[in-house]
Amino acid sequence: MTTNPSKELKTFKNPNPDRKYTITIDTDEFTALCPMTGQPDFAVMEIQYVPDQLCVELKSLKLYFWSYRNEGAYHEDVVNRICDDLVELLSPHYLKVSGDFNIRGGLRTLVEAEYSKDED
Amino acid sequence: MTTNPSKELKTFKNPNPDRKYTITIDTDEFTALCPMTGQPDFAVMEIQYVPDQLCVELKSLKLYFWSYRNEGAYHEDVVNRICDDLVELLSPHYLKVSGDFNIRGGLRTLVEAEYSKDED
Amino acid sequence: MTTNPSKELKTFKNPNPDRKYTITIDTDEFTALCPMTGQPDFAVMEIQYVPDQLCVELKSLKLYFWSYRNEGAYHEDVVNRICDDLVELLSPHYLKVSGDFNIRGGLRTLVEAEYSKDED
Amino acid sequence: MTTNPSKELKTFKNPNPDRKYTITIDTDEFTALCPMTGQPDFAVMEIQYVPDQLCVELKSLKLYFWSYRNEGAYHEDVVNRICDDLVELLSPHYLKVSGDFNIRGGLRTLVEAEYSKDED
Amino acid sequence: MTTNPSKELKTFKNPNPDRKYTITIDTDEFTALCPMTGQPDFAVMEIQYVPDQLCVELKSLKLYFWSYRNEGAYHEDVVNRICDDLVELLSPHYLKVSGDFNIRGGLRTLVEAEYSKDED
Amino acid sequence: MTTNPSKELKTFKNPNPDRKYTITIDTDEFTALCPMTGQPDFAVMEIQYVPDQLCVELKSLKLYFWSYRNEGAYHEDVVNRICDDLVELLSPHYLKVSGDFNIRGGLRTLVEAEYSKDED
Amino acid sequence: MTTNPSKELKTFKNPNPDRKYTITIDTDEFTALCPMTGQPDFAVMEIQYVPDQLCVELKSLKLYFWSYRNEGAYHEDVVNRICDDLVELLSPHYLKVSGDFNIRGGLRTLVEAEYSKDED
Amino acid sequence: MTTNPSKELKTFKNPNPDRKYTITIDTDEFTALCPMTGQPDFAVMEIQYVPDQLCVELKSLKLYFWSYRNEGAYHEDVVNRICDDLVELLSPHYLKVSGDFNIRGGLRTLVEAEYSKDED
Amino acid sequence: MTTNPSKELKTFKNPNPDRKYTITIDTDEFTALCPMTGQPDFAVMEIQYVPDQLCVELKSLKLYFWSYRNEGAYHEDVVNRICDDLVELLSPHYLKVSGDFNIRGGLRTLVEAEYSKDED
Amino acid sequence: MTTNPSKELKTFKNPNPDRKYTITIDTDEFTALCPMTGQPDFAVMEIQYVPDQLCVELKSLKLYFWSYRNEGAYHEDVVNRICDDLVELLSPHYLKVSGDFNIRGGLRTLVEAEYSKDED
Repeated sequence: MTTNPSKELKTFKNPNPDRKYTITIDTDEFTALCPMTGQPDFAVMEIQYVPDQLCVELKSLKLYFWSYRNEGAYHEDVVNRICDDLVELLSPHYLKVSGDFNIRGGLRTLVEAEYSKDED
Repeated sequence: MTTNPSKELKTFKNPNPDRKYTITIDTDEFTALCPMTGQPDFAVMEIQYVPDQLCVELKSLKLYFWSYRNEGAYHEDVVNRICDDLVELLSPHYLKVSGDFNIRGGLRTLVEAEYSKDED
Repeated sequence: MTTNPSKELKTFKNPNPDRKYTITIDTDEFTALCPMTGQPDFAVMEIQYVPDQLCVELKSLKLYFWSYRNEGAYHEDVVNRICDDLVELLSPHYLKVSGDFNIRGGLRTLVEAEYSKDED
Repeated sequence: MTTNPSKELKTFKNPNPDRKYTITIDTDEFTALCPMTGQPDFAVMEIQYVPDQLCVELKSLKLYFWSYRNEGAYHEDVVNRICDDLVELLSPHYLKVSGDFNIRGGLRTLVEAEYSKDED
Repeated sequence: MTTNPSKELKTFKNPNPDRKYTITIDTDEFTALCPMTGQPDFAVMEIQYVPDQLCVELKSLKLYFWSYRNEGAYHEDVVNRICDDLVELLSPHYLKVSGDFNIRGGLRTLVEAEYSKDED
Repeated sequence: MTTNPSKELKTFKNPNPDRKYTITIDTDEFTALCPMTGQPDFAVMEIQYVPDQLCVELKSLKLYFWSYRNEGAYHEDVVNRICDDLVELLSPHYLKVSGDFNIRGGLRTLVEAEYSKDED
Repeated sequence: MTTNPSKELKTFKNPNPDRKYTITIDTDEFTALCPMTGQPDFAVMEIQYVPDQLCVELKSLKLYFWSYRNEGAYHEDVVNRICDDLVELLSPHYLKVSGDFNIRGGLRTLVEAEYSKDED
Repeated sequence: MTTNPSKELKTFKNPNPDRKYTITIDTDEFTALCPMTGQPDFAVMEIQYVPDQLCVELKSLKLYFWSYRNEGAYHEDVVNRICDDLVELLSPHYLKVSGDFNIRGGLRTLVEAEYSKDED
Repeated sequence: MTTNPSKELKTFKNPNPDRKYTITIDTDEFTALCPMTGQPDFAVMEIQYVPDQLCVELKSLKLYFWSYRNEGAYHEDVVNRICDDLVELLSPHYLKVSGDFNIRGGLRTLVEAEYSKDED
Repeated sequence: MTTNPSKELKTFKNPNPDRKYTITIDTDEFTALCPMTGQPDFAVMEIQYVPDQLCVELKSLKLYFWSYRNEGAYHEDVVNRICDDLVELLSPHYLKVSGDFNIRGGLRTLVEAEYSKDED
């Protein structure tokens, strides 16, 4: 029973592109595999962004997170990769991804990556 | 037993228009319907504003929130709409609306919209 | 947009009727109308039961809670009514319903009703 | 502006007198005056009871608590008095009153009085 | 037993007027009456200030808060009035009053008013 | 990268079989798939037991939990199955399994199953 | 400025000796000196009792606690001594003293002593 | 710099052997080495006991805990060993040791061992 | 048993004077006497500073705090005095003292005093 | 059983050196010895940094922290030393080390040291 879900993120048109407002989505259900040991890692993953013309559709985001379930992914790498994927998808004014990974060997690791559109 | 309450917001005169002070009103009793599934959504809704000549009357604000009870409303849309309605009503120095929506599909969503009067 | 959902609760066969184990389901998304003022009430509702031959199906329970959304219901009454409905449906070894209603007039009200099957 | 509200508690018929269920009502808005100094005291007051034929009506309970606002009342005394008043009113199977009084002179005081109907 | 306490605030000389330091005083025992319904309101009230030549004497502040007990006072108004009274009394470098009022009709209201002395 | 780990639980000899003491092991990293939708479920899983001759080895328990990662499992069923597996493995004096599953459709579900050895 | 306050505890008549009710008094302002090092110790001290004919007067209890401020007192000893003093004073149905002492050398110590009147 | 401290526990005479009272001592500074990997383990360790003729002296208990710092010790074993050592030392009416060990491999482990003197 | 400890604060050389780093020390064991009533006051006291050439030695700081135990001290005064003493002792880049005093008459008082060395 | 682990920190190449992102690693399992008394100290240690070309490898960081277990280390010194070691290893854009040490003599100590690369 291991169908890998589609990784395709979907968007909808920002209902209010004239106002710079903030959308924050978080989940405590992110899990991937450690590329070195193959064992599961768990994280609280949070996306915060200021949309420009597009917003990310919630159900496709859920499936996108789910697609990491059986993939190997380093902490530093996966947060940057999610940041890149969402910036490419949404071209937002601002976007931040935070991954707060469960304790391994007594150490908790939080990785935070930000993007700001070059605007004047 | 489903009388839709009036959506008419009422105001009273700001008792101290010379001082820029802050009023924050929040409720954990906001509920609307999901436009896609028709199922209820729930949110903590918070209004923060710096009044100019007018303040929003609390009872009418309660009825206004209540008027969303049987309406379909997207997360991003409803927060911007409340922001627009209150800015139009109050013409405040500053106003911010935050809607913190309950978990759906493992994802929690927070939408925050701000308005600042153009003043010099 | 005010379709009243079906109130019909559904069941599935208890996968382990030989062991007396406990199932606890709670939601902070229960809302009904005050029969006196017609205004919305909100509660955290919790069901705890020891199944005999039947378990309550989760999706139908969600719809059942939802069916109170536009009905008038006194605090004491609604908790007892939910208790009766579930006892009739499930004929469980034990069942308890707790409704923790939001503050009204400065008073918070918690109603708890229990049922135990007469067994020797 | 110091109208003393009526102290008259009102009741309604227990909608389910055949089941022994529990009603818990609490408020953090109880205030009375210290009989020795005349200064205000504040408490979290909680009523828990198992109704027999009668339940206490919430609005009259609010007014009853309010009636202590300008009366002198010792901590030990007021909790027992509320217990007596409610037992006389409701003749319940069980009733408990807890008053958790704010710090005075570095000491916090909690008074708890219980009543159980003599039943076999 | 309803002697209204004196509203007269007292001061003492700032023991260290050369240093701009901060004093924060808060109480969860503020209560007044709603001017519309006559019913009691409750708030956590906080005063924060940077004294210049004078500090407010604590016991007189307690009596001052107490003097609102049987007076009608709107949320927005009472916070501004306390701010004005203390600014007039102390002529401080800075002063802020925050009133965090208990839930009414499902809405919690926080009012915050600030004053800064015009200094260069 | 989807190797299913071995489900084989391992034991070690109880270092103190003469004393009835309690071992409690919990993890917030339990995840399985919903048999109806195929989507991931998440739970805090807790094992509490009084060992007789055998204790469960921690690393094999971690792998055992992990083995559910790509299996379909109903809430009620998985808790009872873990209980059965551990009772069969350990033949303990007492054992309890609690699975506290994340919110789905606004409902949180906790399933608790107990076993007590028949001893006199 | 080291006046040792009177250690004399005072009582008042129990306003309701016919009901066995509970009074709990706690303070986080208990301090004594370590008899070995002479250094200050700090504790949260709690008195819980069911009064018979007498209650302890709060102000005298505050002074009584204060009287330990400059006395040497072992943790185990001081809790038992307070228990003895209050039992002798009040002859209560039940009394319990708990002293929760601040961390010393990485160890936190809680001492709890109970008394129950011999009654049939 | 690795002097192993003395493991010798010391006692003092119970100041009140006629009353059965409770002493609870806890520390979040317990550390030992994992016998399999040699890596450090950490635990919150709690001792609760009802003394008979003897109490354990705090400073020697601190040194006793410290003596595990460079020793290998399994979770189940170390809690039982501490229980045995203290029962042999104190011959108490009752004693309980709880060791709450930090997360390893996503699993938290709590071991609790009790002793009750055979008394009639 | 009331030896007043020495008030003499001691220092040690900052091990890293080239880096501006921060040291924060707090205690919930500060107590002094109210100069008006002679009764004990209690506070959480916190020192935060950026050392230049000297650091304060911890044991002497403990004794220094202890020296206030039997002295009369107003809230505003004692925080400023501690600030002055430490600035004179350490000549730090920055120093802040915060005293958070326990509730008296329903009011909690926090006093915060800062010092910044005049540097360019 | 007191093998001192290697203190050698290892690195891996930053997977995304073009973006300035933040990595935060914390542990509540840091322990060293007090250089004056030889007794164990405990701290929560946190590393926060913005990597340039290199990231610190987690397992080697765990071993590095472990290497302090049997070494004498002053609070102020150890935080600065860890800061120096990591700056030398990683040459990061930014790095901060925070050590929050357990209570000794009633005082809790937090030491925070920062480094910022000189960049224009």
